[in-house]
Amino acid sequence: MKLITFKQQNGEKKAGWLSQSGMAVDMHQVSNGALPDNMLALLDNYEHYQHYLKTFFQGAGEGSGHYPLNEVQLLAPLPNPRSIRDFYAFEQHVKTARQNRGLSMVKEWYSMPVFYFTNSLAVHGPGDQIFRPKACRELDYELEIACVIGKKGRNVLAENAEEYIFGFTVMNDWSARDLQREEMQVGLGPAKGKDFATSFGPAIVTADELEPFRSGKGYNLMMKASVNGVTLSFGNVKDLYYSFGEMIERASAGTTLYPGEILGSGTVGTGCILELGTDIHRWLEPGDTVEIEIEGLGKLKNIIAEE
Amino acid sequence: MKLITFKQQNGEKKAGWLSQSGMAVDMHQVSNGALPDNMLALLDNYEHYQHYLKTFFQGAGEGSGHYPLNEVQLLAPLPNPRSIRDFYAFEQHVKTARQNRGLSMVKEWYSMPVFYFTNSLAVHGPGDQIFRPKACRELDYELEIACVIGKKGRNVLAENAEEYIFGFTVMNDWSARDLQREEMQVGLGPAKGKDFATSFGPAIVTADELEPFRSGKGYNLMMKASVNGVTLSFGNVKDLYYSFGEMIERASAGTTLYPGEILGSGTVGTGCILELGTDIHRWLEPGDTVEIEIEGLGKLKNIIAEE
Repeated sequence: MKLITFKQQNGEKKAGWLSQSGMAVDMHQVSNGALPDNMLALLDNYEHYQHYLKTFFQGAGEGSGHYPLNEVQLLAPLPNPRSIRDFYAFEQHVKTARQNRGLSMVKEWYSMPVFYFTNSLAVHGPGDQIFRPKACRELDYELEIACVIGKKGRNVLAENAEEYIFGFTVMNDWSARDLQREEMQVGLGPAKGKDFATSFGPAIVTADELEPFRSGKGYNLMMKASVNGVTLSFGNVKDLYYSFGEMIERASAGTTLYPGEILGSGTVGTGCILELGTDIHRWLEPGDTVEIEIEGLGKLKNIIAEE
Repeated sequence: MKLITFKQQNGEKKAGWLSQSGMAVDMHQVSNGALPDNMLALLDNYEHYQHYLKTFFQGAGEGSGHYPLNEVQLLAPLPNPRSIRDFYAFEQHVKTARQNRGLSMVKEWYSMPVFYFTNSLAVHGPGDQIFRPKACRELDYELEIACVIGKKGRNVLAENAEEYIFGFTVMNDWSARDLQREEMQVGLGPAKGKDFATSFGPAIVTADELEPFRSGKGYNLMMKASVNGVTLSFGNVKDLYYSFGEMIERASAGTTLYPGEILGSGTVGTGCILELGTDIHRWLEPGDTVEIEIEGLGKLKNIIAEE
């Protein structure tokens, strides 16, 4: 199932799914209120709602509560995540990013999946403008896959982690490289380099729908990113060194993980300009269109604007 | 005014204030519903509620909606902040922490107030047990002051920042030094070192109440911390190198700051065991009582427990 949040022409926000025939379906409306009117409420009581979700997804024909996609605006599928952790779980990205700074690989990277928290109040969706911060002249995209938590847990082991995953979505972790480089001299990790925007979408694809792509402890899903129609980044979800199960184990160690939290994978190898080098492509400028796409999850497009 | 959140003996959570006579007042009840029943709702519409807050604070005598403090349990005054940013704004702490790692001061620290985001879903209040993570053997406290945002803003300048401050509270940024040291080798800043607990309280003291303590661009407020009754840390809010106005300018540059976000100051000089050294005091152990106190804001006590 592909879960979405969308805005109707009258400005009302709805949550629901994409139907087989490509319509946006308002789950609250087609279920006569048995399903909630926003994604976070669905996640908060997913055990209760799961049955209704399947029933109405299969049973809802066309008609009331169905909207052609060209008459609605897709928003981030979970516009208000409880938190966003971004991991650093693709080996090639970490190696190349360090090489570019003249650093060798750090051995601790192989002993645990590390992450940082980013701003969960700066979430954008498909088609949104991304405002380049005033002080930034080195704006970058980052091609990532994210998992959305659907169940409360603490000290979850990787081998039991799958039941905590509600689904997956495409994530673009916008990065101000100049601000990031400057602040990270002080040693607290990225904050202003990342806090202005993270985009997600177009949908949260439930884990069951990705079963055909299963490969080992992960998924075989092609990833790519383009700027102004030119494809710059190619990767695959199966190249993750740490699985989402291992990331959930790390995230939930000694602290409670709640429904509606998001875990990003970190950038896939070649998945940003920092890694490609500005010989390959200049930093992003206002007016640029950035599209990132993951097989089975869809395409997420954003346009750069001046703050 | 000292704003609080508290739990009644029947388990109900209430928001309100401490009366002059030291009672916990339920603001929703004493205002007959003119004021909301939780702190985040008050902050979200503070311009609307401000008038009622003053009226009912001054007008509410004793009686209905007033509870003796020994009959209620104080919780974190804002149990569900929208985010927590923790700055690094006391020079002595940064210098000493770097010296202890054999590092000299980094020049970038003097050009901007840096911060990281921490886990806003692991908030604790006065009296709460703090669970030492299973993997941690070097548990530490951090003596900090925090400001609570009361108004939405973006690209706020330091000189205009005061109107965005709702009030101040005592903050203890619990730290697992061994986990922090290990993960920070990879260069993403603290996450597991800090994500298990942050405590706040006992109250949010509105900025107007701190006017008598005004000193330059900050406040002259003594800070101290003790473990099992032995005072280990002494500091003063006036030693902040960066004012809360400057922190708000930094936090809101290129991103929107919302009511209910919290900005921590970072640790005051001498304000943690890491800085004092384990010759002065061993790391915290289950059973230890940690009390941190700031003049005008009150005392925040927690007890360490085994996860």
